[in-house]
Amino acid sequence: MTIKHPIPKKKYTKKERPKNLSYLSNLGMTLEKDVEETNNYYLEIKRAVIHKKPTPVQIVNVSYPSRNKAKITEAYYRTPSTTDFNGIYQGFYIDFDCKETKSLTSIPLANIHDHQIKHLKAITSLGGIGFLIIYFKAYDEYYYLPFEQLYKYYKNSMKGGRKSIPYKHFQENAYLINFSLNPRLDYLSIIDKHIIPKMKRS
Amino acid sequence: MTIKHPIPKKKYTKKERPKNLSYLSNLGMTLEKDVEETNNYYLEIKRAVIHKKPTPVQIVNVSYPSRNKAKITEAYYRTPSTTDFNGIYQGFYIDFDCKETKSLTSIPLANIHDHQIKHLKAITSLGGIGFLIIYFKAYDEYYYLPFEQLYKYYKNSMKGGRKSIPYKHFQENAYLINFSLNPRLDYLSIIDKHIIPKMKRS
Repeated sequence: MTIKHPIPKKKYTKKERPKNLSYLSNLGMTLEKDVEETNNYYLEIKRAVIHKKPTPVQIVNVSYPSRNKAKITEAYYRTPSTTDFNGIYQGFYIDFDCKETKSLTSIPLANIHDHQIKHLKAITSLGGIGFLIIYFKAYDEYYYLPFEQLYKYYKNSMKGGRKSIPYKHFQENAYLINFSLNPRLDYLSIIDKHIIPKMKRS
Repeated sequence: MTIKHPIPKKKYTKKERPKNLSYLSNLGMTLEKDVEETNNYYLEIKRAVIHKKPTPVQIVNVSYPSRNKAKITEAYYRTPSTTDFNGIYQGFYIDFDCKETKSLTSIPLANIHDHQIKHLKAITSLGGIGFLIIYFKAYDEYYYLPFEQLYKYYKNSMKGGRKSIPYKHFQENAYLINFSLNPRLDYLSIIDKHIIPKMKRS
């Protein structure tokens, strides 16, 4: 987890971004890994403390083949009741999830679970910063979608409105996250520029 | 998780607290369970959103005996890099862990892992509220120990000083948490009274 020799920050445009160089072999990982790398970098430079929550697992059986290491031999995935990521930045409670879509035109709301909406609604109403990071694979673009924008589409869908958020909405209203080497996905700069100036301290 | 018929709040002194009544059979659970019940209550009344992080597990093998349910057949416990509990209250990022001791005289610092100290130091320096809930079984007393107090003892122990925090310190400087039916361990009231008034908003 420790970055001993930080790689100098360099920004790549979509076309420039090197994909096949071996020393960059960690690029092209999943969205979640990119976010975790970003968080490790933020932690290292003491900018923020944001962690991914472990996948919740119900452990049924454990064996002890050696004295050192317990081996879980039966367990099941449980449904999380929160989003995957949370932590602290600039004194604010931060909470978000990551989603990706191959679609050219929209992201279906079905990708976002009810418990995640409920959780993000609860934390934003208590003064937290809630959002999604949405990756449009087709365009290789990452967007910061504030919870308030998500919630408008969600509420509308509950009343029979459209069941997805159009790509056009992202282009016009969400915030494009810069992809670079370090940090990979600099979502805190979006928060600095667009979110904190609008926050009310209680 | 849903409390449909909240039990009226009643405070018990140490001697009065009923332990063997069947309708209270959930009392006398572990400290962690009491804290989780407390958090469920806070969530229900929309006072705070604070969750226990799942135990981190490295999953090695999964089988699919039926179409519905994946069965994890080989997994191992991993060392967490944070504390067990975090969330949001009054706009503040909250982060803590629970410890208990049978000792009459002190709690050994060995009970508190280095990664927990490091994590709590990072979050408090970013404006978060970090603390421990310490249960002295012998006295049936729960204390709120602010991270700053813990850190003084920790730093001193690193310089060769005592390796434990005396019970006397808790009586004189930490905050006794009230135990009742609902919420079980009302630690947010300690934060209201003793912590938030001293916090500086950035």
